[in-house]
Amino acid sequence: MLKGIPRILSPELMKILMEMGHGDEIVLADSNFPAASCARKLVRADGHAMLDLLDAILAFFPIDTYTAYPVTLMQVVPGDPMPAIWEKYRQILIHHGIQISKLGFVERMAFYEKARQSYAIVATGEESLYANIVLKKGVIEAAR
Amino acid sequence: MLKGIPRILSPELMKILMEMGHGDEIVLADSNFPAASCARKLVRADGHAMLDLLDAILAFFPIDTYTAYPVTLMQVVPGDPMPAIWEKYRQILIHHGIQISKLGFVERMAFYEKARQSYAIVATGEESLYANIVLKKGVIEAAR
Amino acid sequence: MLKGIPRILSPELMKILMEMGHGDEIVLADSNFPAASCARKLVRADGHAMLDLLDAILAFFPIDTYTAYPVTLMQVVPGDPMPAIWEKYRQILIHHGIQISKLGFVERMAFYEKARQSYAIVATGEESLYANIVLKKGVIEAAR
Amino acid sequence: MLKGIPRILSPELMKILMEMGHGDEIVLADSNFPAASCARKLVRADGHAMLDLLDAILAFFPIDTYTAYPVTLMQVVPGDPMPAIWEKYRQILIHHGIQISKLGFVERMAFYEKARQSYAIVATGEESLYANIVLKKGVIEAAR
Amino acid sequence: MLKGIPRILSPELMKILMEMGHGDEIVLADSNFPAASCARKLVRADGHAMLDLLDAILAFFPIDTYTAYPVTLMQVVPGDPMPAIWEKYRQILIHHGIQISKLGFVERMAFYEKARQSYAIVATGEESLYANIVLKKGVIEAAR
Amino acid sequence: MLKGIPRILSPELMKILMEMGHGDEIVLADSNFPAASCARKLVRADGHAMLDLLDAILAFFPIDTYTAYPVTLMQVVPGDPMPAIWEKYRQILIHHGIQISKLGFVERMAFYEKARQSYAIVATGEESLYANIVLKKGVIEAAR
Amino acid sequence: MLKGIPRILSPELMKILMEMGHGDEIVLADSNFPAASCARKLVRADGHAMLDLLDAILAFFPIDTYTAYPVTLMQVVPGDPMPAIWEKYRQILIHHGIQISKLGFVERMAFYEKARQSYAIVATGEESLYANIVLKKGVIEAAR
Amino acid sequence: MLKGIPRILSPELMKILMEMGHGDEIVLADSNFPAASCARKLVRADGHAMLDLLDAILAFFPIDTYTAYPVTLMQVVPGDPMPAIWEKYRQILIHHGIQISKLGFVERMAFYEKARQSYAIVATGEESLYANIVLKKGVIEAAR
Amino acid sequence: MLKGIPRILSPELMKILMEMGHGDEIVLADSNFPAASCARKLVRADGHAMLDLLDAILAFFPIDTYTAYPVTLMQVVPGDPMPAIWEKYRQILIHHGIQISKLGFVERMAFYEKARQSYAIVATGEESLYANIVLKKGVIEAAR
Amino acid sequence: MLKGIPRILSPELMKILMEMGHGDEIVLADSNFPAASCARKLVRADGHAMLDLLDAILAFFPIDTYTAYPVTLMQVVPGDPMPAIWEKYRQILIHHGIQISKLGFVERMAFYEKARQSYAIVATGEESLYANIVLKKGVIEAAR
Repeated sequence: MLKGIPRILSPELMKILMEMGHGDEIVLADSNFPAASCARKLVRADGHAMLDLLDAILAFFPIDTYTAYPVTLMQVVPGDPMPAIWEKYRQILIHHGIQISKLGFVERMAFYEKARQSYAIVATGEESLYANIVLKKGVIEAAR
Repeated sequence: MLKGIPRILSPELMKILMEMGHGDEIVLADSNFPAASCARKLVRADGHAMLDLLDAILAFFPIDTYTAYPVTLMQVVPGDPMPAIWEKYRQILIHHGIQISKLGFVERMAFYEKARQSYAIVATGEESLYANIVLKKGVIEAAR
Repeated sequence: MLKGIPRILSPELMKILMEMGHGDEIVLADSNFPAASCARKLVRADGHAMLDLLDAILAFFPIDTYTAYPVTLMQVVPGDPMPAIWEKYRQILIHHGIQISKLGFVERMAFYEKARQSYAIVATGEESLYANIVLKKGVIEAAR
Repeated sequence: MLKGIPRILSPELMKILMEMGHGDEIVLADSNFPAASCARKLVRADGHAMLDLLDAILAFFPIDTYTAYPVTLMQVVPGDPMPAIWEKYRQILIHHGIQISKLGFVERMAFYEKARQSYAIVATGEESLYANIVLKKGVIEAAR
Repeated sequence: MLKGIPRILSPELMKILMEMGHGDEIVLADSNFPAASCARKLVRADGHAMLDLLDAILAFFPIDTYTAYPVTLMQVVPGDPMPAIWEKYRQILIHHGIQISKLGFVERMAFYEKARQSYAIVATGEESLYANIVLKKGVIEAAR
Repeated sequence: MLKGIPRILSPELMKILMEMGHGDEIVLADSNFPAASCARKLVRADGHAMLDLLDAILAFFPIDTYTAYPVTLMQVVPGDPMPAIWEKYRQILIHHGIQISKLGFVERMAFYEKARQSYAIVATGEESLYANIVLKKGVIEAAR
Repeated sequence: MLKGIPRILSPELMKILMEMGHGDEIVLADSNFPAASCARKLVRADGHAMLDLLDAILAFFPIDTYTAYPVTLMQVVPGDPMPAIWEKYRQILIHHGIQISKLGFVERMAFYEKARQSYAIVATGEESLYANIVLKKGVIEAAR
Repeated sequence: MLKGIPRILSPELMKILMEMGHGDEIVLADSNFPAASCARKLVRADGHAMLDLLDAILAFFPIDTYTAYPVTLMQVVPGDPMPAIWEKYRQILIHHGIQISKLGFVERMAFYEKARQSYAIVATGEESLYANIVLKKGVIEAAR
Repeated sequence: MLKGIPRILSPELMKILMEMGHGDEIVLADSNFPAASCARKLVRADGHAMLDLLDAILAFFPIDTYTAYPVTLMQVVPGDPMPAIWEKYRQILIHHGIQISKLGFVERMAFYEKARQSYAIVATGEESLYANIVLKKGVIEAAR
Repeated sequence: MLKGIPRILSPELMKILMEMGHGDEIVLADSNFPAASCARKLVRADGHAMLDLLDAILAFFPIDTYTAYPVTLMQVVPGDPMPAIWEKYRQILIHHGIQISKLGFVERMAFYEKARQSYAIVATGEESLYANIVLKKGVIEAAR
């Protein structure tokens, strides 16, 4: 534990978030996602709700501003209802100053492929379906 | 995820609980414990409260019946108040059919040494002080 | 050993079953299957009969409900008799609430390729021919 | 699988039995023994009964003839009954031409230390208590 | 060393022979074969004649019965004489109950590719040219 | 790079600072210190001045409050002048709210032994002599 | 530290510079570059300005003379201003006797691909945008 | 050191020369060759002249007799002079009974590709340009 | 295979013989010796007779001349006959110019300890009892 | 190769020299020294004369000024002549500005122990006896 670092962020996850560069993507996977079989780097966050993790990450992680949709969800298969958790995602994004229009959707099979190409996948304990989310890292300008 | 396995138990933690045998000990460490420097095997459970983890583990883990104190806490240094979380530990133990008289206390330095000899240490996100707890594994009788 | 976990499930196998996600497949291979040369992850269960292992796994493992045939066998080569063990597989599936119509068949060479793409292969000691079986993992809904 | 090799013997166990030399010891541990924490080399044989494994091993493994007690059991703690499985051990030893007088007993704590010094430990699924057994390897004379 | 296992079989080679399944191939390479550069798994048997090794292996290794040519040699390049060792191979095959008609021949470049795809290559000390031999593993029927 | 994390802190160093627990020590070593031969874990920060690194670390790292001297320097060998950098260390400590009386001194050989027991050593590029400094981690109280 | 070697060069970076041969390329990446996801070999130089590192490297590193553009920058995306740091790069190149006409430019996506093929990537702390630079190693003529 | 083995041959290089089989190639690379980036196996012989190493190797290494050009050099780029070291190579080849007509030449880019496919590359300290040489291993006939 | 190197010497054994220095010892172990449990480095030479291996090694390996007994055998336990193979050892030593008076004997338990301290142990297939032999490496004088 | 770095220094050796700190020792071992069995880190420089290596190293390596004898040789065993190479060592030391009085001597067994505690050992090809030399690293003062 360190001052100012939320305890839901494991040392390994913090290291990975720091290592990522402009354009690298990280997948926050719900508890049913095949995270272990898709991940180049797998970080486990068993038992944690997605909203808690997302909120902690966005406090540090710059979202890409060069792409149309730097935050991506998996499209609902026709017939399935709109996941309730998505509305909460919108609120967190707004809370962190990210425009909702930045939220994109990717068809299921393309989403799996995107996950396989991502820098890391975090396996959460989120119970909701369609709760997977991909974040693309942006640039931090000078003048630290 | 599997049917009947709480999602707070990571695959690696479940594996370790299964590997342990009669007399092996596991430390559930609070967020200030030097888990990484003491552990032979380290399992991270960052961000989780001790009570949630303890409850999930005791559903599967047999407590030793051959020892006077198979569940151990770190003695409070003189002057410090009794930790409030201990009362909750007692309730969980009773809930899992473990007699409170089985609860032992070990002086701080001896506790560190006990942790270094344990089979594994789980690094939790528990914020309470004096919240570390050691469980000694018992025997499972035949007649499965 | 843990309370409620059958002793035929090794710690490593339990870990692998937990790590798998929606759509991942596991092959239970009979004793003549080229498990070591096909497997990405190999778990050995030498000497065990397939029925014992299958029964133990299905108590925890959710079968996929989004696919036509989430349980797959290798098609018999023309001329060979129907394997006697298949009837017992049907009984175990029914016992675990899985519809028999979910049982699919794959031609031999395609079966080998399916095995190479699977998340893990368990090398059992099953003596019967055509006893290999593939299980595709399903989703566990919330409300644990 | 190979012709003439029982399928309960895993490839790794066979390799270890072959590597051992005169005086090396192997522990066959029951399902409650702390095998993972004591073993230099650990071989898992989850779910298997000790008698099946012992019978398969003794078909290949020469017992030392230079020591008084090349086969060792853990002494029963005072008050505990004589384990029923021991009588079956005696029958298997006789069946493999080993004199019963070769069977020695070691006090519990000394047994753990002996296990830590052994070449390998096989973690079986044997449910009986006091079922652990140590075999010391002997010499194979020329004239194969 | 174990009772009944020829001492020319190393522990690692025995393990590999056991791990192989139906259809897997093993190459016994003569001393000039580029074994180290072609092998997925390399087992060294430096200094040993091929006939001694082949005889020891065939006592345990079931030859495939589903293929036309489960035993394969490298075709002689036009102009080269028939290798004398081949006649001895035929005698060993007959000695182990394998029909000579099972012996196939593969063109040199195809043989190298076959070796690269094999489960393992054993680097022997055989001096004869064209002495390489490939064995395809068969099935062991139940009723041990 | 992340928002709010100084760029002098490498991902690996941040991970190590997070992993450390109550009582663990980290050595910031000057460029002449035998860091590679003493360290259990070595983090390189070649070319960086100690003051820059110390300032960045103290923004996150809680200093132990249970010890008399949680910040330690190497005693000057008799005859050597007081290092000028120490006065700057005092200013940084004050800047981060740490009492100067917390600053302890350890004899040279004891300092080396302390370094060998520490959780990690950071090899900086600091040119000043006697610039090594040890930080002992403290506790973070709840109520984040 | 060694006599005559600048302390900004880490031991690992020096080793890599020595290992490289004629035609091998090294990328000096700014702090936003996805260095960890692109690199075959990653060397971290967190917190360091590019100019300091470039100056230290060019004192030892021969630039290729057989290629038109042995030093390469990433082309500015249309609309973006000319990076101020490039003028300083030109001065350093001149200072080390490298003709400015040797400076080439590569389109952004081609630059990423070039980075993935390079021998190593150094992750610096440079804050300027478009500050990445690729160096192609030249030949050192005899007569040392 | 061993009797009769030149001290310029390192233990690892001797091992690699022995492991190679008929048709495998080894590259002796001059000091400017990108050995580390091309090699599957890299052996360092820093500081050594090519002629010393070549002479030591040819005392043990049989050159292939089935290929037109078992010894290969890199073609000189048009305009460059004939390297003086080549004449010395011819003398060493003759000294070891190898016909000069066996010496082949490969275009530069093809030479790099050949190096990437070779069994090993030895990084020498040879200063001469165009001094790289590839040796293809031949057969050792019986009758040792 | 190389010219002049006996094929009974594996590449790894040759490498180890070369790595050894003045005073290092190597154990040639018979087939009953506990080689795998005693060895720091284990080299397998399964199936080979000790005399063949010893003869091949002594052609390269200088025996120490500074010690009274640079070649050591295990003392016969009282009552056991003199091993027949020892006479053949004497002949080989004489053949390689080593005085028989150099042959020393070590008590059994001391021999095991000596083996544990040796640089490497070669596990041969020698069937004779008391056939283990230790060689201490000597110096090679200049003037190669 | 880099500008200004002698080619006898391998990349790995340069890295090790840079990693060493004040008080760390490096052994330059002659060709008969048991380097592989004594070294924590072993660097091979087969075939090289000690004087060439020593000269190259001393151009970069600061010798300790706080110790009486920062350069150490192995004492000659009574009766042996003074090694001729020592006089050349004295000349090289003087050439690099090191006082001859800094040259110390250590009894043979103590020298071996010193080597085992050193940071690294370089195995050279030096033929002279008693040519081993130990260098203790000193401090580099600021003002680079």
